[in-house]
Amino acid sequence: MVQKKFGQALKELREKEGLSQEKFALKIGMDRTYYASVEAGKRNISLQNIKKIADGFEMSISELFSISKI
Amino acid sequence: MVQKKFGQALKELREKEGLSQEKFALKIGMDRTYYASVEAGKRNISLQNIKKIADGFEMSISELFSISKI
Repeated sequence: MVQKKFGQALKELREKEGLSQEKFALKIGMDRTYYASVEAGKRNISLQNIKKIADGFEMSISELFSISKI
Repeated sequence: MVQKKFGQALKELREKEGLSQEKFALKIGMDRTYYASVEAGKRNISLQNIKKIADGFEMSISELFSISKI
């Protein structure tokens, strides 16, 4: 449930920036297929990778989770 | 850095509740030595385990990170 909500929020944020999964993954130095599976809610992502994604959206981790509503 | 800040916040929250690491770990169903290493900032903790800890403090993940200032 948490993974699904988090993934959904990432998808919305990324689309709002007009970036493809590939472009965003490249921007943050993450494997594209891994990033896609995070958006799909299929990954029990680690804190370091959460940090990478938050940095990619230029926000804090707490802001990212606040948006994710989890 | 993120791991250290997160661990420090957990330690403060736990101590405010007057619980030992052992009691808190037991409460959330987490191995005591694993929990201790998270507080020490030594673990790249996963989202599911972050959720367990947030639940243990009866707060949302976003509140937990807001307190952690990360």
